[in-house]
Formats: sequence, structure tokens, C-alpha cells
Amino acid sequence: MATLLSSPPSPFGRKVRIAIDVLGMTDRIAVLTADTNNPDDPVRRHNPLGKIPTLLLDDGDTLFDSRVIVDYLNALDGRDLLIPAGPERIGVLREQALADGILDAALLQVYERRYRPAEHHVESWLEHQRGKVSRALDAFSARLPVARPAGPSIGEITLACALGYLDFRLEGSWRATQPALVSWLDGFAQRVPAFGRTAP
Amino acid sequence: MATLLSSPPSPFGRKVRIAIDVLGMTDRIAVLTADTNNPDDPVRRHNPLGKIPTLLLDDGDTLFDSRVIVDYLNALDGRDLLIPAGPERIGVLREQALADGILDAALLQVYERRYRPAEHHVESWLEHQRGKVSRALDAFSARLPVARPAGPSIGEITLACALGYLDFRLEGSWRATQPALVSWLDGFAQRVPAFGRTAP
Repeated sequence: MATLLSSPPSPFGRKVRIAIDVLGMTDRIAVLTADTNNPDDPVRRHNPLGKIPTLLLDDGDTLFDSRVIVDYLNALDGRDLLIPAGPERIGVLREQALADGILDAALLQVYERRYRPAEHHVESWLEHQRGKVSRALDAFSARLPVARPAGPSIGEITLACALGYLDFRLEGSWRATQPALVSWLDGFAQRVPAFGRTAP
Repeated sequence: MATLLSSPPSPFGRKVRIAIDVLGMTDRIAVLTADTNNPDDPVRRHNPLGKIPTLLLDDGDTLFDSRVIVDYLNALDGRDLLIPAGPERIGVLREQALADGILDAALLQVYERRYRPAEHHVESWLEHQRGKVSRALDAFSARLPVARPAGPSIGEITLACALGYLDFRLEGSWRATQPALVSWLDGFAQRVPAFGRTAP
């Protein structure tokens, strides 16, 4: 049995946990909580970058980051559910990259508070990150992720996790200006029960 | 003809430029310099995250980030040179993720200087990022990227760009403690002439 090192608030961990659920692999992969801020946590032994999610395989090898784990699970499953084969593939990977980019920019805003005393916060840096989030949300709003009859793609899953993280850590202020994405997320939550089950 | 938005100092751009060269596609993809700090630069119209590299396709669509572009080029070429098929695949993707992680942590150290006045630098944050780089280099040193007879994989290319970036922006201080990687990089530079041609 493989083990996923993650933590309930981690949006990249949530993405992988939803992927595991969608593929019907919850009984094959245990989920353990790791503390990335604790230098003695096993996560740094398994992943030199000290990041979650990290997947520990049965043969002792480890996989990271979330995109690599998703690629591995998609291939292991063999049905191309998360990442479609053929011409749709690259669009889904692009959606994943755009939503990952929202998460990266949101995390840097959160880290500003977590790792720096208030007097060291730099407003122009925060504004730079907010601009990325807001332009990326506009882009998703103008071109919603393609819904696939076979189930949610990793593009959809990652966008849902990104919006969930903006709700969780950045007061959901995106909701006031992105009505199309609010509706989209409501629909996603109904279609994909694992989204609710993995809420932080 | 497709166009790659990049810039000479960008390590992720260098990764894609080397990939293009290795695949023999230099006459099919033009490279244009973008300024990610200029809000009026076209890059923000093509990539909401405002990041390079961004690939503009002939049909008007755009691709980012570097991993997605590499996946696209690898499939377009069709020989699985950058990302092998079969059992080797996941190891190469893991190498790419580890080297990308070195770059992310190195860039955050550089951004500390670029985006924050000196009095706002936070040593514990810098140390956190240095720790990631140093553990990842140890891991690569203990397990060098697999060299493939068909040519360099994206794992090797990304590690070379990461080490090149540490030389370019962080005074190459890694060299004193990582002799195995110094030799490895020398060998890579000999095997892959595009590495020298894309030096910042």
C-alpha cells in the first residue's frame, strides 16, 4: 500500500486526494499528515524540497510534486480519466498549470503573513501576486475548464482546489467579482463529492 | 511558426530553449524576449500569470508553464526523447520536479533582493529556501540523473539549468560542496552544445 504525505489545509495535497478518490484508489493509498515546518518531520527525508504532497511507493521510492503524482496515478489507472489522451490532453495540462499558478501566487500571499513580521510585509510584492490571481481568474471565467463526461479532469480538480484555497485563506473575496466561477464551483462540488470530503 | 516568449536570464526559459534545440526545432520556433516586470508587455495578455516561458502557437492559443511546453514539444516530436515512454518516464518527471524545485527556491532568494528593500529581508525565510536547495543538491549528487543514449532527458536538462542558475545568480557557491555535480555538469555541457549557447 502506498502512502501520501499531505496535510488537511494543503491545496496541492487536496488536488491529489481528490484525484485518488476519483480514480477509486482510496483503499490503496493511505494518507498521513506531515508538518512541513518541522525539520524533523519524515517529509524532508522523503522529499528534499520538504514539500507536500509526497507519495511513498511500496518499493521505497518517492514521488513529488503534485503534477508528477497525478501523472503517475493517471498512468497506473490506465483509463486517462484525469489527463485525457489525444488532442484534449494539452488543454487540460494548461488548465492545471493556470490553476497551479493561482495557488502559487495565493500561497506567496499567505507566506508573507506566516514567515514575516508585519513590519516586513511589502505591499508591492503582495499586489504583484494579487494581479496574477485576478488575471488568471478572469481567464478561467472567460473559458471555463472543459467538463468531460468520464469525470473531472485534473484541470477542473485543480481549479476547484484553487478556488477552495482562496475561500479558506484569502476570505473568498474572489466571489464578488467572478459569478461565473461561483456557479462553476457549485456545480463541481455537486458532481464531485470528494471536493466536500477534502475541505480543509 | 510558433513563438516562445522568454528572456536570456530565465532558467525555465533556458530549459525550453535547450529542449527545442535537442529536438531540432530551432527553425520552427522563434524566440522573443519578454519583460515580465513591465505591465504593458504582451506576455500578460498571453499568459495571465505574466510568466515566461510562454509558447504562442500558430492557431492563436498559448501554452505555459515550462513543463506543459515541454510535454507539448515532446509529443509533437513523437520520439519520446525528452520524456521517455515506459518505466523510465516517472523517474525523469521526478528529476524534473526536483530540479524545478531547486529553481523555485533559488528564485525566491533572488526575488528577496529584487522586490524588497534590504531592511525587509528576512533571514529565516532565506535560510528556509537555502535548505531546500542544499538538500535537493545532495539528493541529485547521491543519484545522478539517468543519462539516456538517445540524448538528454528533461530531467538532465532541468538539472543543468538549475546549476547554471545557481552559478549565474547565487555565486556558484554550490560548487565547493558538490564535486559530483560539478563533474556531471561539465559532462552535460560537452554532450549538449545548446547548454553553452543558451548561457545567460
